[in-house]
Formats: sequence, C-alpha cells, structure tokens
Amino acid sequence: MITNKNCIIRLSRYKNALYRLRESGAVKVFSNNLADAIGVLPSQVRKDFSFVGISGNKRGGYQIDVLIGKLNSILGKDELQKVIVVGAGNIGTALMKYNGFEKEGIKILACFDIDPRKCRRSGKIPVLPLKELKDFVIAHKIKIGVIAVPDSAAQAALDIMIASGISGVLNFAPIALKPQREAVINNVNLELELESVIYFVNARAKTERGSAI
Amino acid sequence: MITNKNCIIRLSRYKNALYRLRESGAVKVFSNNLADAIGVLPSQVRKDFSFVGISGNKRGGYQIDVLIGKLNSILGKDELQKVIVVGAGNIGTALMKYNGFEKEGIKILACFDIDPRKCRRSGKIPVLPLKELKDFVIAHKIKIGVIAVPDSAAQAALDIMIASGISGVLNFAPIALKPQREAVINNVNLELELESVIYFVNARAKTERGSAI
Repeated sequence: MITNKNCIIRLSRYKNALYRLRESGAVKVFSNNLADAIGVLPSQVRKDFSFVGISGNKRGGYQIDVLIGKLNSILGKDELQKVIVVGAGNIGTALMKYNGFEKEGIKILACFDIDPRKCRRSGKIPVLPLKELKDFVIAHKIKIGVIAVPDSAAQAALDIMIASGISGVLNFAPIALKPQREAVINNVNLELELESVIYFVNARAKTERGSAI
Repeated sequence: MITNKNCIIRLSRYKNALYRLRESGAVKVFSNNLADAIGVLPSQVRKDFSFVGISGNKRGGYQIDVLIGKLNSILGKDELQKVIVVGAGNIGTALMKYNGFEKEGIKILACFDIDPRKCRRSGKIPVLPLKELKDFVIAHKIKIGVIAVPDSAAQAALDIMIASGISGVLNFAPIALKPQREAVINNVNLELELESVIYFVNARAKTERGSAI
C-alpha cells in the first residue's frame, strides 16, 4: 500500500497523460514525455514507477498500453467505482454534471439532500431524500462518498455516511471532520486553494518591490 | 516568503478556526485547541507559528484577536483580493455562487466565457465575453484568476490571462498548463482527489482481506 497521497495523485496524472498520448497515436513513451506532460522532473517519474514496481528501460521507454494497464491495476481502477454525493447545491450539481468521472471508471449513482425541493427521482443521477441514504448505500455496496454541504451540516452528513458503511470521503466543506470510526477523509477547500495562490502572488510582488529599492 | 504551500494552507485553516472560536465567545486559544480544530498535532501548530514569527506562551496561550491580525497580515489579507473566473460552466457558476469568499476578503469581480449565450451583464457578478477580459483585468488591476473551462480550452485561457497581466491562477482543468512567463499556478483536479480516496479505501480493504486469510 502506497501511503503517499501525492504519489497516488501523480500516478493518476501519468495515466491521464498516457490516455491522451495513446489517443494521439503514440505507442511508446519515455519518462521525460510523462514528466513534461504533468510538470515534474523525469527523475520523479522514474522514482514513482520504481516505487510501485514498474520497470522500463532508458533506451526503449515504456509501452503505453502496458503502462496504462499496470497503473489501472495499482490504482484499483479495474472495476467501476460507485460514488454518492451528499448535498445538491452548486458544488454537488457541478460534480453530477461533470463528464470527467465516467472515463476514469467513477460513477456517481445518486445524490442526497435534506431539502425535499431539491430532490428528483428522474434524471441521469437521481437526487434523493437524505433519509434514504443508508438503505441505498447498503443496497449498492457503496464505499465512497462526497460531502458537498455547508460547514454546519458536514459533520452530520459524515456521521450518516459512516454509519451506512462508507469508508472514504471527499469533503468540500471547509471544516475538519471527525469520523466515528477509521475512515479516509480527503479535504478539498476552494477558499484555501485560492488563498494560497493569492499569498504567493503577493509575496512575489513584495519581493520584487523590495529588490527594486 | 514562505515557500511551503501546505504551511500556507494550514495558516489559512488556523485563521478560519480562530474566527469560529471568536464567534463562540472565546478570547484565548491554545495550540492544542487549534490542532484539534484543523486535525494536526499541537507541535505542528507551534512549529508553523514559530516559522512565521508568531510567539505565544505555553501557559497563557494566544490572544485570538492578535493571532487573527497577525495571520491576516502574513497571508496578505489586509486588502480585498480581486479575482476573475474564466468559464461560466458548472464549476465557474458554483464559484460565483459560493458565499465563503467574501468573508475571506476575496471578491470575484467578473466571469468570462467564450459562449455569448452564457454572458449577462446584469447580476451580482457579470458574465462577460472573453474578448473583454484583457481590458477588464488591466482596468481593475487584477492579478488572480481562476480557470474553470474544459481541458481543451485551458491553455488558451491561461495565455489570455497571462498576457493581460494575471500572475496567479487556480486551475480546475485536469491538464498541466505552461505559462508564457513566470506565474503561480495551483491545480485543483477533482477526479484525482476522488481517485486518491478510492485508492486508499481499496488498499485498506485489500490489506484487511489479506490479514483475514
């Protein structure tokens, strides 16, 4: 088991780049092609591959098909990954309409919301009342869920999800959640991501002003 | 200048936690309160604060007001940060409707889209034709932009933004972008964030099955 989240994310990025290379007609790839494609050093690519037991040779490069198969197997993408979303607000709706998941073998089966006005059983992805979450998750053996509700509702959403058998959560609420039992929680906080860009831009501007004196 | 993005993100999280503590009536805070609030070790809090020159004392803790002021000053949040969004699709719309930015001193001034059907000059945040981006960015001295367009349009969006004077970008397109000149690019990739949750859940399930044999 790889415990480094950044390494997992790079492996996913390599795989996406490989799909694009294959679509463009390429058969083989070198570590520096992949490095360019995702913006890391070629030595990082070789280190990541060696770490997960993928070997290539410097002169011959890697066979794209073989590499995609190995990465999918490592990333557990051999089977379809079923996911539910809690919260049918803006983020939840954006996720439901997002086309990128299916090609990654990820399928959002349903969304759940506490507000009956947001619920609708028809549509490609149904929006169901929150109280139906537990039965749905158990019936469909779902392990992965996304939290896209406001801060104040996020812990309650997590508690229901965990009690229903979900063990991995992508959380968009800008708050640290505490699972009742061991679970994987990955936090995405849009404000913080934007703040980090703002910080670096301001810090660079200050440095430039400082050096101009 | 702090070069560690994770440290910047933790400082923002501390600040958000401090606002919540202050709202609940607290005046002082200890490193272990902040550690609990954002899910890190107390030693991490003290290390981060010491790294940016914030000192406290173990017995007395930190004054919340003083701490918020220092963090805002470090994070460059003394003044309003003006931001534009490119792409009025699902993600762009979610960002425009998101209420969390203003309290962080971040204001989305406008959104730009290449599709005239998505443009509307009225509304709290106008959606303007992409060709107006450059004049708008120059007139409003905007340095920060968000890319919320499909893969295939992302590099062109970046090129226009950089040529208009933007130097910091939050990118939602799942592709590595190459700026024409030095710029800060922070990539948010929802598929990869979800894939990393899936990987860890599957890896844990495999480990559990393995140990049960």
